[in-house]
Amino acid sequence: MSMYDAINDECGVFGVYSDKVSKLANTVYYGLYALQHRGQESCGIVVNDGGVFGYHKGFGLVNEVFNPENLAKLPKGKIAVGHVRYSTTGALTAANTQPIVVRHVKGPMAIAHNGNLVNELELRRNYELKGAIFHSTNDTEIISYAVTESRLESGSIQEAVEKAMYKIKGAYSLIIMSAQKLICVRDPNGFRPLCLGVLPDGGYVAASESCALDSIGAEFLRDVIPGEIVIIDKNGINSITTHCNRKTSLCIFEYVYIARPDSVIEGSGVHAARIRAGRFLAKEHQVDADIVIGVPDSGLEAALGYSLESGIPYGVGFVRNRYVGRTFIQPGQDMREDSVKIKLNPISDVIKGKRVIMIDDSIVRGTTCGRTVKLLKEAGAKEVHVRISSPPFISPCFFGVDIDSKDRLIACKKTVEEIAVSINADSLGYLSAENVVKIAPNAKCGFCTGCFTGKYPIEVPKKMPKDKFESKITQY
Amino acid sequence: MSMYDAINDECGVFGVYSDKVSKLANTVYYGLYALQHRGQESCGIVVNDGGVFGYHKGFGLVNEVFNPENLAKLPKGKIAVGHVRYSTTGALTAANTQPIVVRHVKGPMAIAHNGNLVNELELRRNYELKGAIFHSTNDTEIISYAVTESRLESGSIQEAVEKAMYKIKGAYSLIIMSAQKLICVRDPNGFRPLCLGVLPDGGYVAASESCALDSIGAEFLRDVIPGEIVIIDKNGINSITTHCNRKTSLCIFEYVYIARPDSVIEGSGVHAARIRAGRFLAKEHQVDADIVIGVPDSGLEAALGYSLESGIPYGVGFVRNRYVGRTFIQPGQDMREDSVKIKLNPISDVIKGKRVIMIDDSIVRGTTCGRTVKLLKEAGAKEVHVRISSPPFISPCFFGVDIDSKDRLIACKKTVEEIAVSINADSLGYLSAENVVKIAPNAKCGFCTGCFTGKYPIEVPKKMPKDKFESKITQY
Amino acid sequence: MSMYDAINDECGVFGVYSDKVSKLANTVYYGLYALQHRGQESCGIVVNDGGVFGYHKGFGLVNEVFNPENLAKLPKGKIAVGHVRYSTTGALTAANTQPIVVRHVKGPMAIAHNGNLVNELELRRNYELKGAIFHSTNDTEIISYAVTESRLESGSIQEAVEKAMYKIKGAYSLIIMSAQKLICVRDPNGFRPLCLGVLPDGGYVAASESCALDSIGAEFLRDVIPGEIVIIDKNGINSITTHCNRKTSLCIFEYVYIARPDSVIEGSGVHAARIRAGRFLAKEHQVDADIVIGVPDSGLEAALGYSLESGIPYGVGFVRNRYVGRTFIQPGQDMREDSVKIKLNPISDVIKGKRVIMIDDSIVRGTTCGRTVKLLKEAGAKEVHVRISSPPFISPCFFGVDIDSKDRLIACKKTVEEIAVSINADSLGYLSAENVVKIAPNAKCGFCTGCFTGKYPIEVPKKMPKDKFESKITQY
Amino acid sequence: MSMYDAINDECGVFGVYSDKVSKLANTVYYGLYALQHRGQESCGIVVNDGGVFGYHKGFGLVNEVFNPENLAKLPKGKIAVGHVRYSTTGALTAANTQPIVVRHVKGPMAIAHNGNLVNELELRRNYELKGAIFHSTNDTEIISYAVTESRLESGSIQEAVEKAMYKIKGAYSLIIMSAQKLICVRDPNGFRPLCLGVLPDGGYVAASESCALDSIGAEFLRDVIPGEIVIIDKNGINSITTHCNRKTSLCIFEYVYIARPDSVIEGSGVHAARIRAGRFLAKEHQVDADIVIGVPDSGLEAALGYSLESGIPYGVGFVRNRYVGRTFIQPGQDMREDSVKIKLNPISDVIKGKRVIMIDDSIVRGTTCGRTVKLLKEAGAKEVHVRISSPPFISPCFFGVDIDSKDRLIACKKTVEEIAVSINADSLGYLSAENVVKIAPNAKCGFCTGCFTGKYPIEVPKKMPKDKFESKITQY
Repeated sequence: MSMYDAINDECGVFGVYSDKVSKLANTVYYGLYALQHRGQESCGIVVNDGGVFGYHKGFGLVNEVFNPENLAKLPKGKIAVGHVRYSTTGALTAANTQPIVVRHVKGPMAIAHNGNLVNELELRRNYELKGAIFHSTNDTEIISYAVTESRLESGSIQEAVEKAMYKIKGAYSLIIMSAQKLICVRDPNGFRPLCLGVLPDGGYVAASESCALDSIGAEFLRDVIPGEIVIIDKNGINSITTHCNRKTSLCIFEYVYIARPDSVIEGSGVHAARIRAGRFLAKEHQVDADIVIGVPDSGLEAALGYSLESGIPYGVGFVRNRYVGRTFIQPGQDMREDSVKIKLNPISDVIKGKRVIMIDDSIVRGTTCGRTVKLLKEAGAKEVHVRISSPPFISPCFFGVDIDSKDRLIACKKTVEEIAVSINADSLGYLSAENVVKIAPNAKCGFCTGCFTGKYPIEVPKKMPKDKFESKITQY
Repeated sequence: MSMYDAINDECGVFGVYSDKVSKLANTVYYGLYALQHRGQESCGIVVNDGGVFGYHKGFGLVNEVFNPENLAKLPKGKIAVGHVRYSTTGALTAANTQPIVVRHVKGPMAIAHNGNLVNELELRRNYELKGAIFHSTNDTEIISYAVTESRLESGSIQEAVEKAMYKIKGAYSLIIMSAQKLICVRDPNGFRPLCLGVLPDGGYVAASESCALDSIGAEFLRDVIPGEIVIIDKNGINSITTHCNRKTSLCIFEYVYIARPDSVIEGSGVHAARIRAGRFLAKEHQVDADIVIGVPDSGLEAALGYSLESGIPYGVGFVRNRYVGRTFIQPGQDMREDSVKIKLNPISDVIKGKRVIMIDDSIVRGTTCGRTVKLLKEAGAKEVHVRISSPPFISPCFFGVDIDSKDRLIACKKTVEEIAVSINADSLGYLSAENVVKIAPNAKCGFCTGCFTGKYPIEVPKKMPKDKFESKITQY
Repeated sequence: MSMYDAINDECGVFGVYSDKVSKLANTVYYGLYALQHRGQESCGIVVNDGGVFGYHKGFGLVNEVFNPENLAKLPKGKIAVGHVRYSTTGALTAANTQPIVVRHVKGPMAIAHNGNLVNELELRRNYELKGAIFHSTNDTEIISYAVTESRLESGSIQEAVEKAMYKIKGAYSLIIMSAQKLICVRDPNGFRPLCLGVLPDGGYVAASESCALDSIGAEFLRDVIPGEIVIIDKNGINSITTHCNRKTSLCIFEYVYIARPDSVIEGSGVHAARIRAGRFLAKEHQVDADIVIGVPDSGLEAALGYSLESGIPYGVGFVRNRYVGRTFIQPGQDMREDSVKIKLNPISDVIKGKRVIMIDDSIVRGTTCGRTVKLLKEAGAKEVHVRISSPPFISPCFFGVDIDSKDRLIACKKTVEEIAVSINADSLGYLSAENVVKIAPNAKCGFCTGCFTGKYPIEVPKKMPKDKFESKITQY
Repeated sequence: MSMYDAINDECGVFGVYSDKVSKLANTVYYGLYALQHRGQESCGIVVNDGGVFGYHKGFGLVNEVFNPENLAKLPKGKIAVGHVRYSTTGALTAANTQPIVVRHVKGPMAIAHNGNLVNELELRRNYELKGAIFHSTNDTEIISYAVTESRLESGSIQEAVEKAMYKIKGAYSLIIMSAQKLICVRDPNGFRPLCLGVLPDGGYVAASESCALDSIGAEFLRDVIPGEIVIIDKNGINSITTHCNRKTSLCIFEYVYIARPDSVIEGSGVHAARIRAGRFLAKEHQVDADIVIGVPDSGLEAALGYSLESGIPYGVGFVRNRYVGRTFIQPGQDMREDSVKIKLNPISDVIKGKRVIMIDDSIVRGTTCGRTVKLLKEAGAKEVHVRISSPPFISPCFFGVDIDSKDRLIACKKTVEEIAVSINADSLGYLSAENVVKIAPNAKCGFCTGCFTGKYPIEVPKKMPKDKFESKITQY
């Protein structure tokens, strides 16, 4: 699957508490940079300077939104939090950028959220009936109300967060900054990753993925436990454990596609998981061929795994134009057909006359995959055998990944054989649902495979709430 | 007083209801353009297309924030509301731009507000203790909560607005847009102007000043009555009168400086009021001189009035650089002294060897006035007699005008004679508080002269709430 | 005539030589600011730091193109030159911005030019046949070739400039910067103004108008004499006089409209000239009326002159929206008719029931004037008598002012009476060609009245060269 | 070598002639997109609509400079030319962007150039002494003068180009657009690539690399022959061959690093050349190890070749942050050390406890390579053996590649053993100069290896002319 295709990642969160670092905003900047793959639509940084919050947010990549001037303007401080976002709920409006920064009964509070609530509609209605007003369509604003409501009857922010956790349901990895504290929370199922690190000169960091710790030279400490509330303040790092003994269900697609290969989640490396996915795929769907290639960038590692397992040589089949970015425009309609070629060009030398195994991580609608196969055939491939390093998508994700709607998922409408025909592949094989959960064998948790099986670890709403709100208020 | 000096205007509001106009956003754009003098910091337009709201807001002048592209993107619709803003409460952050657009219990709602509440702090605390969260430091958000709270126990938006009027205290000219209606409200004192107009092809308009009606070709209908709620919807225009028989107190400084000369407020023309102010000034502070000049642009009309009354010839004493704008930068420090000259250059031919009467509308700190006198003397004026077309500022405004703090107001620290010495004027005369209220004799209302007298028509807080919030959260 | 109407000013030039000023770029910035009315399309500053030139140019107003960052980046130095431009020849492309900065046989050279050559086409062809290439359609590039060609056979830059003056024909006020010198040149006719000033701490300044000297605190020294070459370098200020005893012909329209009122050109003040124009107009075209008003901003002073001469009271008839700028957009077509009203709104109080004399400086196509008369009549004027403080335009300008083409000039097609009818004026009177040359009685020079009389002081081409080039190369 | 390191590519050129394509600007846009790797600093497109040229140029990547609005504004036409640029001569000023668009004796002309002249200084002086003026420091402007000079005595543009080829010396792949024709020229040595393609619906394309033909769906026709002038006009495609039987010398570094892997140059595929370089390297510098990894992106293919030849397994050792772009900023100094880690993070799983062979394409100063080795050792590598797929840089390039100056090239100052120590590698091996010329065995030409050997195929100047001009005129 190409990086600009139909599956959108979700969000990345980052927080830091340190009185040693001279400019915390820069630390967050680097951290968000490393998490950029989790959200390219908007980003923001909030710095807490002794209870006074300064922030900057905007639309675009981290290095578009931030520059030396606005970073310099942000206050120095001891606590900071940042966010990169792709919208899973909530339209593309400024009110929906994160971290959300509000004043509540106890002063300022900032919240960065990765995930998606399943009882968003009930909660929203409940707060509306109590007089709440909403500026955004973002469920993070609902979480703010839940924490604020609990705060009125709690002695501390952590107590309020704990109470709020019994109201909000779904996937949430949260970093909350209050006047004094940095609070890191992971939902009881642990749908999304969240980990902790230690800065070389002292202080703590929290981030969606360990690659963000590496990028700032922090040492990995541990994952936040599902259901845990970690409190970082002048007393150091403390923890409240809630929802104990609950079955956990980390999103398996984090290993397949979302996370960066250099991250380690719940003790299992992402790169190794993808190599392993390729190996399983080779065992499940053998075929006689001359070369194994991956669709850049996300299919390359599974291709290497397939090659290692099958003994069929690994090759570089495509050149990806590394300048095709978020802002790539297609000025004319007459060349739409060739848009795949602008991003991806096959290397004829490698392909010509060969029986090719092409590995990708997933198929959504089938259109892109079909075009990619076509490119290989035009470049002279004798046969193209498509292998997908995850099972077919047959159901939506309610926990923070924006998979296309069911009626556009090709696997909801066609059998594997029919898909093979429609993408013009000589054969097609998906990794089985049995094996996909084995790609991260060291992970100390269970997995959610809802999008592949339709079986979800917690109750889900009848339909996605996204569409309901999107159309009511739009910012241009 | 120069346009870029220490007194900041406040806000301008504009609303329209019409099913005849093809593109309402354009109508609002023109209306805000005519109200630009009431706020140059930020502006916004919200259009209601059958209950679906689309909006665009930003920092800058109307023709900087809006362009043909973003106007075209805004939906067509039957109701729209706009706002130009200079911050009186609330720092310069995106969350503080208006109109504020929120979802409440009954769907979307947009509010544009000109004025300032005096019980902002109590209300904010009250809502916080009920679980409210605030995104802005803007008192418009408080008004949203007040209306939303009342809406829960009201059968209609107008009923909710009426109830909310008994909670909020201070100055407010509001235009509220709900899914179905455009609601125009003026506080019981009528501190800020608000008037209604009829569009040539049908439909109604509401605006802070009548000049905005002229700009779109609408016919002036009437002023909104202090305490009145005007409801415009598919049933036409209807009205609820509240707080009857209350003494009204329109801000007299609207006539002196804030409003545009071509506006008519409460039946009295602003241009004529300024001519009249000059005439009164001539009667109060006669002096033998060769020429009367005004400080551009706001002193020109009073100068003409002074000339007409005194018989001393009117002349053009200064050229104002018409390109000096909001964004004028002064790159170096070594030329700071000359910055007045960049904006204002005296015409030697006119001034040289003359005894000059120089008219301005007000003196805040005295620095600018002193520099202006110096320019005239350097240009050869034999004498410079300064006449100010309003009384000395001795007290803050709590009703929406950002007059400098008391310890920087020169009239709080010095007598008129001392001020004359400090600005190096040969004589100085202010319009008296007795006469300033006579400059708009046709106005069907009383006046607030709090900033000139320290006597306010309603109870005011001990100190301005602005500073309290500004420092807590800042957006960069 | 409104500032955004059909006559475009031309260009403004500014140069400075000083080793006392810490940051010359700032000095030029302020100077260009004061000359902004001479060209709003593009501007540029070049600084010479010991033979190394640094420059910044761009499209827009001075305070849009320059900011503290790019001013700070420009080198310090002892010589600098700047330019504001409205295109008289040459399309709106980056290559046409000025000062033009080139390398020629003797190193770097920058040229800022106000004026227009009449033998541009011959010269361009001549150089092309010698192998020249042109990046722009700007005649300044032709001047560069002329100076460069002469430089090959001259001992100094001033000698080269003198030789070049015998090749180039037409209007040119030039400021040329070489590695060592600042050279100021005015064409033998003195079509365009150019004056010299002394800086308070030492050093010299040259500028199109004296208002730019005022803006930086420089003292006026003298006008550059038509045909003179002024050389400013480490030896101070020196001069070469050429083309002696030639009849001079300063553009009279500089006094009527182009120059700023606070400037003094050739010893005659511009403000006084406009007052005088109004007085002549009153003598030539008396009429019984109640009030005299000017069309802002350029008609205001002639209106005052008319009032002083006629004894009819002066009044303020219009409010001009001071935020209508270069970038004013009109989003919709349905309001085009009202666009005059957005810029200019009549004050009913002043106009209603009155016989009004409305003064403007010129009529080009008649459309704007017609709309302005209409505004007054709609505001209740009983009669509107239009008086124009210059003669009718009947011929193009070949010397740097972009007057509309002949077939669009209303005075080429209609008699004064017919124009009066078409603009719906009760009477119309123009200042006579006899009197327009008397408005600046102290000027030590003759005048060009070509646009009013069709008689030009030097031979002019059959047609304007502008159109020929504009269509060949365009930058988007 | 990382993409943001010290060796800068040079330029890419693209031209098209077709009366079938509806919007040629879009075709050029796509073509430049595919050539983006050859220059990221500025770009431009010129379209010829019946002799009228319209262009847009700017600083930044193709998708930053162009957008649907400015592409739509460019005229339709039958001929167009485009350019992407990294400055090899000439500072970063607007005057240096390409294609250069000028008017010469025969009308408009646009030139796009990839390469560098060796007799630039002599030519520049020669033209200056004939009266030329230079707007840029770009040698493309010199080529314009050479063609223009020859055009005066030639019957056609192609004849003028042929004559000019006897004046200009060095590396040049040119696309010249006149009013009627598209002219493609390659210098007699053929230093830089240039190839021709046919559009599916008719018409011809010329481009620096064949990948640009693929991107627009054009079919590869042939390379332009060194010394050839290809004329494309209404008569189709014609050719003039000059400088026959001259020894050719294509830059071998095009295969090693500059060109895109999917391009085929002179009949030899670039990807295959890099695989081959890795194989040669394995033969020359064998070592016992556990894994072969490449430094992304340019070292990956040679790593695969090394693995194939040596039998040591290929692995993915690094994750490159794909969002690190041209505009990556480093806000603080305190993290400078870690900047490599932000771009490149090693995957511990793969590296830990392993003996690693790390392949890169070149070493310039050694700093980046040293940091990369350090990353691997910190990630747990037991040994790191560095292998470089080209010989050491010991001499500058005079033909269009911006290799660092000699005193900063580590191979000029240290032996291979000393370099190994300074980068902390356990061993270091470079591809030999003998073998580097064998990596493209199908190429129908000779090679330039000047940067590796100091032996150049034509006479070169004593020093690089770049520095001489850069400091004289700078645009900010």
